[in-house]
Amino acid sequence: MTETSASPLAPANGFPDLPVIAGVRFATTCAAVKYADRDDIMLAELSAGATIAGVFTKSGTRSAAVLDCQDKIGRNSAGGAAILVNSGNANAFTGALGQMSVQALTTEVANILDIAPSRVFTASTGVIGEPLDHGKIVNKLRELQNSLSETAVEKAARAIMTTDTYAKGSTTSYSHDGETINLIGFAKGSGMIAPDMATMLSYVFTDAKISQELQQEMLSKAVESTFNCITVDSDTSTSDTLILAATGMGKSSEISRLDSDAGQGFYNALHRLLLDLAHQVVRDGEGATKFVEVRITGAESVTDARRAAFAVANSPLVKTAIAGEDPNWGRVVMAVGKSGAIADRDKLAIRFGDILVAENGWVSAGYSEEVGAAYMKQSDLIIAVDLGVGTDSAVVWTCDLTHSYIQINADYRS
Amino acid sequence: MTETSASPLAPANGFPDLPVIAGVRFATTCAAVKYADRDDIMLAELSAGATIAGVFTKSGTRSAAVLDCQDKIGRNSAGGAAILVNSGNANAFTGALGQMSVQALTTEVANILDIAPSRVFTASTGVIGEPLDHGKIVNKLRELQNSLSETAVEKAARAIMTTDTYAKGSTTSYSHDGETINLIGFAKGSGMIAPDMATMLSYVFTDAKISQELQQEMLSKAVESTFNCITVDSDTSTSDTLILAATGMGKSSEISRLDSDAGQGFYNALHRLLLDLAHQVVRDGEGATKFVEVRITGAESVTDARRAAFAVANSPLVKTAIAGEDPNWGRVVMAVGKSGAIADRDKLAIRFGDILVAENGWVSAGYSEEVGAAYMKQSDLIIAVDLGVGTDSAVVWTCDLTHSYIQINADYRS
Repeated sequence: MTETSASPLAPANGFPDLPVIAGVRFATTCAAVKYADRDDIMLAELSAGATIAGVFTKSGTRSAAVLDCQDKIGRNSAGGAAILVNSGNANAFTGALGQMSVQALTTEVANILDIAPSRVFTASTGVIGEPLDHGKIVNKLRELQNSLSETAVEKAARAIMTTDTYAKGSTTSYSHDGETINLIGFAKGSGMIAPDMATMLSYVFTDAKISQELQQEMLSKAVESTFNCITVDSDTSTSDTLILAATGMGKSSEISRLDSDAGQGFYNALHRLLLDLAHQVVRDGEGATKFVEVRITGAESVTDARRAAFAVANSPLVKTAIAGEDPNWGRVVMAVGKSGAIADRDKLAIRFGDILVAENGWVSAGYSEEVGAAYMKQSDLIIAVDLGVGTDSAVVWTCDLTHSYIQINADYRS
Repeated sequence: MTETSASPLAPANGFPDLPVIAGVRFATTCAAVKYADRDDIMLAELSAGATIAGVFTKSGTRSAAVLDCQDKIGRNSAGGAAILVNSGNANAFTGALGQMSVQALTTEVANILDIAPSRVFTASTGVIGEPLDHGKIVNKLRELQNSLSETAVEKAARAIMTTDTYAKGSTTSYSHDGETINLIGFAKGSGMIAPDMATMLSYVFTDAKISQELQQEMLSKAVESTFNCITVDSDTSTSDTLILAATGMGKSSEISRLDSDAGQGFYNALHRLLLDLAHQVVRDGEGATKFVEVRITGAESVTDARRAAFAVANSPLVKTAIAGEDPNWGRVVMAVGKSGAIADRDKLAIRFGDILVAENGWVSAGYSEEVGAAYMKQSDLIIAVDLGVGTDSAVVWTCDLTHSYIQINADYRS
């Protein structure tokens, strides 16, 4: 792995201070799965009765760990639970050996923590296709158990990193019955994206009390407009995993319905947290120098709006223009055109931030290339397109495509 | 435009010698639409009764010239015909002004050559969104008419170039009733792809005698497995145009059916020619250093096979790995996984050329990274994936994603 400095888009204040969530403890250590000079395994221990929801990659070649997690989510909420993650090896496309590794790890964690194997969730991130030497991890489980701590969350966030240039954490809270409920989370990933070293993993913890079913419903809904609206390079990992664990150890009463005050409070807090983490993943997109919000309005349907937004956000020509600080709105027109979304060429309007660039099918009378070029020098950009045919909308986030992306990905293994 | 030398993948022997096609004459000159130091407009004149078929971009924001051509194809085969192309300006997303330019150009060409306006086909390739100063072209039409020549085809191929690093021509022939029928063609484009300076245009001429309907049927069919199976960067131009003109001035009888000997002879020759031109476009892909054939077999349907093939061919991570000569088959697994094509992870097989890399869901016992790495050093590569679930297949062609692609596209206008 090339030594890299933090992304220019990294949060200025570094990793945030995260409050302790009652019922959650973390431990990390170096098992030297691949990285010999840093912690590369992370264990999170959850108190008895913690409810766990999850959202996973839709890849047709998803990893053994993902398949195992999917099988367990929603099946059992009794007793304690645990999450075990290693970085450096994805244990993906490793056939029967890969399944055996997952089996061995979940069994050993269950034994050591005295919990049901169906309550142990694992993830692996790193190179695809190489067998995972799970013995290295098993040998460290007792050490992990002995060092579990309520405050080791930043270490946990760092242990799961691969090509990330900074650790990504977030926290938010809301009030219910006069009590404060906290949510914390961390994520790794240099994209939505991307196998090898760039799988997206995210873990969110809360002391809210909530049923597994409602928690899963909220997580699945919130993901649609957060993690599922980011793209670095349009590639999808075989291992993407997002887990939400609720310990129920806060002081407020159980959240019973999404459409209650408590439900809305929790959902909005969860959405804020996921959006912040998702944005941090984009800001650490491989080689990124620009954070770009793509807004589509005036679409005939939300599906169309998303299609157009992702066509713009994934277009190599749009992304290279942004890298070059080139206000090349013609490429935006091209991307909308190829998306298949219904648009009226002669009603299309394009804005860069507040600058009206094009309207009624042509460059705006008041637009000048100099103004557009000056705008593109900002590190945070908004590209807005009104399709002119309806009232639906979508927003997605992406980054630019730079020489560094090529460097990171062309030169990594060779 | 950065001064560039010819692609390392350019044909060793340069532009081929193309035979004269009776009934087709070419002329080029410099109208300084954008390029002041080279020919930038091309006129092709076709004899009376020439039949013309066309295939165009499916972009929702296609250019005025494309809309005009689509409207005219198949409407009228009486009298002569003409094709007028300019490079340097795409006349796309130029609103009512753009339509007026097309109207003015087709009317003037019709006047000067004394043919029906509905028999004049234009195309423009270059920057999107800037008005086309068509007066510059109109002023040169008489000069073009006076210099029409049966042998100026290479000049024609050069006049329509933009970011191309070499002119792309091809010829083939077949025998019918003891007579030789010739097909010639040329193309421009550094991708399937791409607006600005990289629209794909191609013109094919033959002296075969064939009805417009049958010609259109064959062209549409042949495009599916030639030009529609190449991708440089997954972006689609607003102006892509492919025209086939048949003068009927050869000595053989009219081709009446696709399933006749003559029909098969013509179709196969047309397919050979289009495939050669399509491959030449990929070989001139922006920044390309590798020509890559992606073969999918064992698919449940042709749709699935194409989906998986394009997912591999368009994956930035696969393309950067190829640029880095990295036999990173894990990224191929990832791309197949994200494609949505039905695949059996545990039956998937991957080959690089003849080298069996992975089978039964894991790296092949006989495979070594050294052998894979040595293979990746070749300039022409084959990546073959068997999905393990059916009998359908697809082949697409692409190139790698290099620093030069970023350079060309990030630095072009700014």
